[in-house]
Amino acid sequence: MYSYSNLLALINTQLSQTQYGNNPVELYDPITYMMSLGGKRLRPVLVLMACNLYKEEVTDALPAAIAIEVFHNFTLVHDDIMDNAPLRRGKETVYKKWSMPIAILSGDMMLIKAIDILAQTENTDFKKLLTVFNKAAAEVCEGQQIDMNFEAQASVSHAQYIEMITLKTAVLLGASLQLGALIGGASNADAEHIYEFGKNIGIAFQIQDDILDSFGETAQVGKMIGGDIAANKKTLLLIELLASAHKDDQIALNQYLQMEVNEKIAGILRLYSKYKIKEFAEAQKEQYLTKAFNHLKALSVETSKTEVLANMAKDLMERMS
Amino acid sequence: MYSYSNLLALINTQLSQTQYGNNPVELYDPITYMMSLGGKRLRPVLVLMACNLYKEEVTDALPAAIAIEVFHNFTLVHDDIMDNAPLRRGKETVYKKWSMPIAILSGDMMLIKAIDILAQTENTDFKKLLTVFNKAAAEVCEGQQIDMNFEAQASVSHAQYIEMITLKTAVLLGASLQLGALIGGASNADAEHIYEFGKNIGIAFQIQDDILDSFGETAQVGKMIGGDIAANKKTLLLIELLASAHKDDQIALNQYLQMEVNEKIAGILRLYSKYKIKEFAEAQKEQYLTKAFNHLKALSVETSKTEVLANMAKDLMERMS
Repeated sequence: MYSYSNLLALINTQLSQTQYGNNPVELYDPITYMMSLGGKRLRPVLVLMACNLYKEEVTDALPAAIAIEVFHNFTLVHDDIMDNAPLRRGKETVYKKWSMPIAILSGDMMLIKAIDILAQTENTDFKKLLTVFNKAAAEVCEGQQIDMNFEAQASVSHAQYIEMITLKTAVLLGASLQLGALIGGASNADAEHIYEFGKNIGIAFQIQDDILDSFGETAQVGKMIGGDIAANKKTLLLIELLASAHKDDQIALNQYLQMEVNEKIAGILRLYSKYKIKEFAEAQKEQYLTKAFNHLKALSVETSKTEVLANMAKDLMERMS
Repeated sequence: MYSYSNLLALINTQLSQTQYGNNPVELYDPITYMMSLGGKRLRPVLVLMACNLYKEEVTDALPAAIAIEVFHNFTLVHDDIMDNAPLRRGKETVYKKWSMPIAILSGDMMLIKAIDILAQTENTDFKKLLTVFNKAAAEVCEGQQIDMNFEAQASVSHAQYIEMITLKTAVLLGASLQLGALIGGASNADAEHIYEFGKNIGIAFQIQDDILDSFGETAQVGKMIGGDIAANKKTLLLIELLASAHKDDQIALNQYLQMEVNEKIAGILRLYSKYKIKEFAEAQKEQYLTKAFNHLKALSVETSKTEVLANMAKDLMERMS
């Protein structure tokens, strides 16, 4: 079986050989730029890893892997416009570097190219792959809309939050694995189990991300501790605190939310500690991890093979870069 | 064979039964709104018409017809953001009625749904259809980018202009016919010929549109005469005038371009007349029409059947609503 770094090398070679088009340059340069900004390439590696569970050779899964990465980057190009984000991976975002119309249009083109690339998959029922891909694509859009709705919403429930992160980020991890498994020749049952593994791992990742924002080391998170608190972001932690704080702490909490940033962070962290919010979030995370690993165990492949996936998930959980 | 109005009725029934999704409403309401604004439904009718050349029953072509119409409306939703357009078919555009982020995201969803709907096509090699669809989709994006480039470009050549209208509008008419023909069971040769018919008719339509803007009746065009002139739009007429005017008329032309709108229109119309620009454009249009009808004649179906397409093209050419 291939290791993570072997698979990453395959992806990077394939990405460097992928041509998106040339003319007009105003449309294609932003695509090449965006695809060269790097990133963990987690999703395409998952495609190959899942294929590798069922087949020694993963070449057949390369188009699907690239398609997923191009799709993911398309969502980033459009999200950066919607979020007014100036930077992406330390470089200017497409709409900042070029313009909003160019970012809209080159994003559209990336979505079209992603499907073109997926269609290059050989030896697999393409309609089956497209169904998985398009379902996830539609859900990612739904998740982004629900996330935008949260900003204007007075209160967000625990269930709404889990739905949002599931759609916005977790389903694409599930779909990546499912595509790879199908290309590898997995049964429909296995393809479902591996999808559920990826989806639940994705939810756990997101909860971990929320936890680290308040309780991580700056070096580990790579950004300011309390960034979510400072931005009044409706994370799982804040949602749970709002739901469980007693009356006078509710009043205190509302006061903290209006305060200057250092006082706000200190105040809310104090309440997180009082109401054991970190412990709550850790328990939630564990629950999704358990679900994920149960689906992994249900696969009809030898445990020695699924260990690569299990280890990768645990590794990522610890590093969370 | 079905008539245009029969086919239009089929399309409208199918459109009214098409569900795009429900939740979140902020994402799906704009899609339903946009798809209900109406329009000639020319492209989906072309899909069915081409299918009908080869098969009595056109039901198999309905998904492709709706997919093309949803795709076309996706381009309008995004173009309206890029063009800052407040109105579309007399109603508020999506980004005006909702917001720019919602217009980007619901447009993205329409592109995903268009491909989903195309994938519902039965009894046809789906990959072949997707290749035709995606090629046209990519070209439409390229055409829109080239059109945006024109605004910043000092001069546009005749060839660049024809390339732009070919990509931005003509190829989608060609692809609509090609999809319908393939679903009807046409040979690859016929599918190519009908594509070329549609593409060349599309170029002729666009040239006609340019001519009518300067020489039509207000009632016929449905908008102010000289609108393109007033906006300094680089139409085929202006491009040809810039290429053929003698030195002192070039100077006069540049002066007109800076003038107040009525003087500008009068001055440029005078030069159009002096250099026989209308005659030039008419000749160009006829050239593309001849090309189109030669491809129509090359089809391996009885002439009585192709007449429906020929008559529709002539009708549209005269009405140009």
